[in-house]
Amino acid sequence: MRVHVAFTPAEAEHAPTAIVVDVVRATSTIVQALASGYRRVHCCAEVEEALELRARLGKGVLAGERNAVEIPGFDLGNSPREFVDPLGETLILTTTNGTRAILVAAESAETVLVGSLLNLAAVAAAAREGGDVEVVCAGLRGRFTIDDAYCAGRIAELVGGQRSDAAEAAVRLARSFPSALDGIGASENPEHARLGEDIAFCARESVLDVVPQLATREGAAVEIVSS
Amino acid sequence: MRVHVAFTPAEAEHAPTAIVVDVVRATSTIVQALASGYRRVHCCAEVEEALELRARLGKGVLAGERNAVEIPGFDLGNSPREFVDPLGETLILTTTNGTRAILVAAESAETVLVGSLLNLAAVAAAAREGGDVEVVCAGLRGRFTIDDAYCAGRIAELVGGQRSDAAEAAVRLARSFPSALDGIGASENPEHARLGEDIAFCARESVLDVVPQLATREGAAVEIVSS
Repeated sequence: MRVHVAFTPAEAEHAPTAIVVDVVRATSTIVQALASGYRRVHCCAEVEEALELRARLGKGVLAGERNAVEIPGFDLGNSPREFVDPLGETLILTTTNGTRAILVAAESAETVLVGSLLNLAAVAAAAREGGDVEVVCAGLRGRFTIDDAYCAGRIAELVGGQRSDAAEAAVRLARSFPSALDGIGASENPEHARLGEDIAFCARESVLDVVPQLATREGAAVEIVSS
Repeated sequence: MRVHVAFTPAEAEHAPTAIVVDVVRATSTIVQALASGYRRVHCCAEVEEALELRARLGKGVLAGERNAVEIPGFDLGNSPREFVDPLGETLILTTTNGTRAILVAAESAETVLVGSLLNLAAVAAAAREGGDVEVVCAGLRGRFTIDDAYCAGRIAELVGGQRSDAAEAAVRLARSFPSALDGIGASENPEHARLGEDIAFCARESVLDVVPQLATREGAAVEIVSS
């Protein structure tokens, strides 16, 4: 088995199993939401698509952010701490980078899982069952981010198998930090400065057993459920 | 001053100074060639362009490789050891990834330098004089490679300044290897298996003082000289 890391969505290659990581915060939010009792998460790349989807479904909790700022008229933002107590069964989420990374992974992988530190052990165990694995980092507006690369390295190490150059680099990067909080807190992204509580929340390792998986694709939206 | 690393040419951003790295082997070859006495290196992305350029110039030593294999009819390959004794003043070089990375960097930077471990200290010192710095890794067919990322990390550390996430990751990656030979020898690229002597040659640090710099661009070719 081979394990690869795409440090940005543009580097994603074809693999049987992709694990999408946007650890601060979209994929942590999806993991937390499904663990808390939401039955499905519809991920949309654009705010308008999220609004149209709720109109079409006739239901759904609207959540998301743009550049780490809440969207006017939405029910919730994108802090995973907002999803500990579910407000319904259907979540409609749109985020800046994470949703787009899931959509890209859906193009190139047969099975798309959602990874974070919260479900680290669970997602690695699930990925090991399906052949070659690629961890797709959401990054920030198409750029490398150290928080996603750290999380990808942790996942790649746990998955095992033969590492690509990028996977080996991610594993070495992860090992260079004394803790997950140091690793995902190391980004220079200025938006992270006011996300201290969320970063601490997202740095907790293997506390949730849920493995979110892409179930269906509807146009520019995807539906994520527990696998 | 800010220092950034583009792990692939596609991630290159605008910066006053770019340092292109294809440590195994194109940029090591360019550094060695100019240190040995070649006066200029014309870099071409395609074999046909190299042949046309020699016809137009009426002179030039033709060198290069495609996927680490020599090109029929060319005078030399792309082993830096072939350039220790110059065969002329004008070198026309076409390589798979390095030349293309230089062409990409030429689009986004005002000053384009050529980096390797051979000229590590010299290129870092030269880059420090010109504002923000971006190290552009050639990679392999657009993909991340650990040898270029290692060399980029060594350069970024020496340049100093405020590191982007990617620069910080590259520095941490470089520090994870006990030696340069371990770092640039860690790639899983199967072509590297038969490049042992070249890799050892390219792993020597700061043994040459030359800082190759992009001088002129002529269509799809660039001319590199000592700065």
